Amino acid sequence: MKILVIGTGHVGGAAVTALAERGHEVIQASRSSAHTVDATDPESIAQLFASVGTVDAVIAALGSAPFKPLAELGHDDFLAGLLKKTLPQIDIVQIGTPYVADGGSFTLTTGVLDREPIRTGAASSAANGALNAFTMAAAVELPRSIRINTVSPTVLVEATSYHPSFPGFTQVPAAAVGQAYVKAVEGVQTGQVYALDGP
Amino acid sequence: MKILVIGTGHVGGAAVTALAERGHEVIQASRSSAHTVDATDPESIAQLFASVGTVDAVIAALGSAPFKPLAELGHDDFLAGLLKKTLPQIDIVQIGTPYVADGGSFTLTTGVLDREPIRTGAASSAANGALNAFTMAAAVELPRSIRINTVSPTVLVEATSYHPSFPGFTQVPAAAVGQAYVKAVEGVQTGQVYALDGP
Repeated sequence: MKILVIGTGHVGGAAVTALAERGHEVIQASRSSAHTVDATDPESIAQLFASVGTVDAVIAALGSAPFKPLAELGHDDFLAGLLKKTLPQIDIVQIGTPYVADGGSFTLTTGVLDREPIRTGAASSAANGALNAFTMAAAVELPRSIRINTVSPTVLVEATSYHPSFPGFTQVPAAAVGQAYVKAVEGVQTGQVYALDGP
Repeated sequence: MKILVIGTGHVGGAAVTALAERGHEVIQASRSSAHTVDATDPESIAQLFASVGTVDAVIAALGSAPFKPLAELGHDDFLAGLLKKTLPQIDIVQIGTPYVADGGSFTLTTGVLDREPIRTGAASSAANGALNAFTMAAAVELPRSIRINTVSPTVLVEATSYHPSFPGFTQVPAAAVGQAYVKAVEGVQTGQVYALDGP
């Protein structure tokens, strides 16, 4: 399969590694990749798809939200999470659908804050929750048997900078996260959120 | 208790009726109430709380999102749902917290589209999903034993204009929805989403 992976962080990298090992042709896009994209800009997403052309699968593994104590999170902070994490991934689906082959798939990315709280995490939780519900809703309306799922990992073993914020949380290896994208791309399910809570 | 109910639709009205029957002092606010508020405007929310003063509970039962087929839902449509449903309810919590008495509560409102899809419902699903996750996250950080829960009803018996969009969905009477707000306000739980899927 020809697979476009948008986002080159730990999670996107895990997807790239796992999918390449399966023999797929993987195209990477990010702010700094050969295929550049600013996913907060719908026009930039449109240019990316016009450049890449038809693919069998699209993986969106990107987005950020402000981390601040609840009392310091203002309107603009919650909006920033929605504009920088939720809407970019939704826009990738909405703009990218015509470029996905019949029976292809989208796989989005959220995280453990959709189901477990940490201090300072409320804006991220909101952004993730929106994407999970969108996944369920979009699955029933996508055309041409195109599927959509979301991978929602707990903190990665390799993402050491996040570890202090997730005390005692079971960690999941990047390799296991990569396999969730393989399952989403090569599998048959749609509308699912794969919650990876570690071994 | 002194309870501020923001939103005067079927759901907000059900909350008002049930809470008044319990003997609480209920203050209603909406675009057209004596206490006027435009909940899409944080400044208007701030003015409302400054006008009402300290309360024991706040109920947010408001918000809208565009209903269109998935293929017609653009960036601005998803953003509208987040700006008109998600952020107003989050802003009510964030701006209203200093006005809620120790041990008081917030109760937000989502709906069945957070867990079951219908055609044209993807923007509403996303907006609801964000609020449900916010509820879980905010619960652990609110100060002074303030609680937060969300009531998520299926389509109401009385909301007949919605019935054609929810074929075969079990309907829930407004009176039962009202009781969910009583449970949220008088009860002990926090961080919960009360899914009302009908009898």
